[in-house]
Amino acid sequence: MHLFLYGPPGAGKTTIGKILARNLNLPFVDLDRIIEANAEKPIPQIMNEQGETAFRDLEASALKALCSPLAENKQGGGRGAVVALGGGALLRDENRALAESSGKVILLMAGLETLLERLERDSEKRPLLAGDVRGKLTSLLETREEHYASFPLKLHVDGKSAEQSAYHAQMIFGRHHLSAMGEYDVRVGQIPNLLPGDLIVTDENVAKYHLQKLPHTPAIILPPGEEHKNLETVSRLWKSFLQHGLDRKSTVIALGGGVISDLTGFAASTYMRGIAWIAVPTTLLAMVDASLGGKTGIDLPEGKNLIGSFHPPKLVLADPSLLLTLSDRELRSGMAEVVKHGVISDPELFEMCSRGMDWAKENIQTIVKRAMAVKIQVIEQDPYEKDIRAALNLGHTVGHAVELVSGFKLSHGEAVAIGMVTEAKYAERIGIARKGVANMIGEVLSQLGLPVEIPNDISREEMIPLMRVDKKRSAGSIRFALPVEIGRVELVEVDVLEDVL
Amino acid sequence: MHLFLYGPPGAGKTTIGKILARNLNLPFVDLDRIIEANAEKPIPQIMNEQGETAFRDLEASALKALCSPLAENKQGGGRGAVVALGGGALLRDENRALAESSGKVILLMAGLETLLERLERDSEKRPLLAGDVRGKLTSLLETREEHYASFPLKLHVDGKSAEQSAYHAQMIFGRHHLSAMGEYDVRVGQIPNLLPGDLIVTDENVAKYHLQKLPHTPAIILPPGEEHKNLETVSRLWKSFLQHGLDRKSTVIALGGGVISDLTGFAASTYMRGIAWIAVPTTLLAMVDASLGGKTGIDLPEGKNLIGSFHPPKLVLADPSLLLTLSDRELRSGMAEVVKHGVISDPELFEMCSRGMDWAKENIQTIVKRAMAVKIQVIEQDPYEKDIRAALNLGHTVGHAVELVSGFKLSHGEAVAIGMVTEAKYAERIGIARKGVANMIGEVLSQLGLPVEIPNDISREEMIPLMRVDKKRSAGSIRFALPVEIGRVELVEVDVLEDVL
Repeated sequence: MHLFLYGPPGAGKTTIGKILARNLNLPFVDLDRIIEANAEKPIPQIMNEQGETAFRDLEASALKALCSPLAENKQGGGRGAVVALGGGALLRDENRALAESSGKVILLMAGLETLLERLERDSEKRPLLAGDVRGKLTSLLETREEHYASFPLKLHVDGKSAEQSAYHAQMIFGRHHLSAMGEYDVRVGQIPNLLPGDLIVTDENVAKYHLQKLPHTPAIILPPGEEHKNLETVSRLWKSFLQHGLDRKSTVIALGGGVISDLTGFAASTYMRGIAWIAVPTTLLAMVDASLGGKTGIDLPEGKNLIGSFHPPKLVLADPSLLLTLSDRELRSGMAEVVKHGVISDPELFEMCSRGMDWAKENIQTIVKRAMAVKIQVIEQDPYEKDIRAALNLGHTVGHAVELVSGFKLSHGEAVAIGMVTEAKYAERIGIARKGVANMIGEVLSQLGLPVEIPNDISREEMIPLMRVDKKRSAGSIRFALPVEIGRVELVEVDVLEDVL
Repeated sequence: MHLFLYGPPGAGKTTIGKILARNLNLPFVDLDRIIEANAEKPIPQIMNEQGETAFRDLEASALKALCSPLAENKQGGGRGAVVALGGGALLRDENRALAESSGKVILLMAGLETLLERLERDSEKRPLLAGDVRGKLTSLLETREEHYASFPLKLHVDGKSAEQSAYHAQMIFGRHHLSAMGEYDVRVGQIPNLLPGDLIVTDENVAKYHLQKLPHTPAIILPPGEEHKNLETVSRLWKSFLQHGLDRKSTVIALGGGVISDLTGFAASTYMRGIAWIAVPTTLLAMVDASLGGKTGIDLPEGKNLIGSFHPPKLVLADPSLLLTLSDRELRSGMAEVVKHGVISDPELFEMCSRGMDWAKENIQTIVKRAMAVKIQVIEQDPYEKDIRAALNLGHTVGHAVELVSGFKLSHGEAVAIGMVTEAKYAERIGIARKGVANMIGEVLSQLGLPVEIPNDISREEMIPLMRVDKKRSAGSIRFALPVEIGRVELVEVDVLEDVL
């Protein structure tokens, strides 16, 4: 599958394309350079000597060759290429159909002035604009207005650096490449009905809705629920792996929520000293959080995730359409982590969350892509949580404890919502957070139907030791991620846990 | 602790020292260069202007500064430096005492002709040899003959490349630095009574003899035996870690044999997603094999080491004096792995093994250092067993199966001895091994008091499925490491396991 960048001359297709290709560890192809290499002369010369129609013919055949299955498999080890297209490359219907069936097309758009500014820098390379650049570009944009407008994926580059535009293109494509802990791709998109795995691990709930989407792979179906994220279940998985004849070269697929990916990842990381796995998250929480970052783990009666490993999947494939089968409560629960990501570093995402559940459901693709991007940025900077990755624990130290004391009556997301507000209030009390931050977070969470206060029947005395045993602790004091303002958190060592609650 | 290289001019102290320092990831110090830097003139000038006594005074004070606790702590993060000494630097008794109490001294020795050849290349730098080099060197060697002879650690460099000499120096010092899977040191030497760890894991047998050597660290004492290398014991360790308040920055010490290091390493690798550990092997087998290479693991009823991880310790400290308390049977068992290492790549070590148990006991330091060096070379080349590390499985595919079917009545080493000869015979039958190799291996093992045939009461039918489930298998066929000759093995895929037995 190729990733195409299209749009008017001067929109930055080549510059942004190169950065995008580097970010995604994919080859970069500039279609115009291929045409020139094939014709053995520069495009202005082709245009002059043979005319535009002849050039468009050459363009069509270059695109055809690039989109042949053979070429696609060669590019990036079957992962496709980033392709910068000429500004009129998809004017012909057959070209457009070919590009759209061979990958995804983003239309890069910019205002006339931006385009002009860039074009003036290298006007000699643009034969269609030679001479009166402003006049010709204006008329070209008018002619193609409807054409460009008809592409559903658009990226406005005005006021953005090429790096920022490339990052936005990644969010629109739903594509990331992680390399800080192992090398792997994260993709947002539809799951194909065959994934390169030998065994699926899923739970009864997920199996009901989604197992038929992967009909060619045997599956182990576990009982659902956090209470099964324990050593007994891991033991059961190991034995199943053996019974299914999995060896060191096998791959398991985790199809499910965070419990399934934590369990499957941990079982995979320890079976025969580590085998490969693919994460196919089926809950919002798993998509934006649990499936990313290579943390695997199980709970002990003494606390959550006390046992685990760092063992990233070889692919994370998030298909937001799977979320349509989730209950409202599950979706809300996932939104708690989305809000958390907004608070950590994306005020725009936080603002989106304030629009409520209905908006979120209608824009679930955007929500998923944006929230995944926050987490990916953090874990790429600090994969082993030496430092800033701990920011992702916002709401979790209190959250884990309240979740455990509730006997998992509170879902993880509900517990995190309570944790975030509790911790934000504490941050205000000790002067870390701006006044009003806890309220802002609380209001957004409430609007999403999430709880924001520790329920009355939860014993705070029971919570303290659970917070203390939480794995985030470093010698002596407990390290909290506390909000400073929307978009920024700080790591703070806390000695007296009673003060937090 | 510094590592000093000493010896006559031309022995290669600087050249070898630099390689040694690089191999051990330690700083390199040339004492003569320090003297020159302090005096701000070259040594020939010091000698000419001030005479030898004045030079020796400067040398003494430079050495003193280098051996001060402050300097030692600064060098290599408290790990010391590799120091090339001048050819007469330890003539004064106080200097010698200082060097020997601040580290270990190896005397580099070479024949007169070798020394002369090297000295002629840069004669102007050697003031004591100016003019008639041969005559002066001969007389210098005569004068210092007794002095040089009095150093217990000697390395003859004749006929060796500087790299080979550096490698030999590593074996003599008992020092290695591994970097292919994490960065850590391996040391052969006495254990200090305080190690930088928070909790010791050991077993009842080891505790009896050795726990008092580490009196300042709390300990968990497990029941001894391979039958405890399972999930229940790991669970117990995790809970103990929690009870002792271990956090992500803690270090556990594995004091014991292979079972203890496999168990402790696995528990450490999975506790809070991985904490540090130190291996202090107390059996020959653990020193030369289990403690090296970062493999950790536990058994399932279905097979050995099916569950595990790659998680190297931060330090391996092997103290051969601990082996004196081992039973004869344990020592013999360890010798099976030593023989294996000889077969894999060290014919000289194999020959040493043929000298029998008494020789081995008297030369246990040499045996340990040499056998460790074989394993370290292999795992540094292929840490994750993609390829040649599988050579270390020689004897183990059959060995694991026979060990399991015997219900652990056979020790691991005994099982490996049986496995090696069985596999060598098979290698001869299929034409991989030279004729007679199985016999040679069998004789050496028998001489060491080890069994070489599958006992009559062991069911071969029961062994087959256990060989099949052994983690070394890759898809379909089973990969064996088979001997070709003493010093060389080959990896071979075997389809019909019945043929092997």
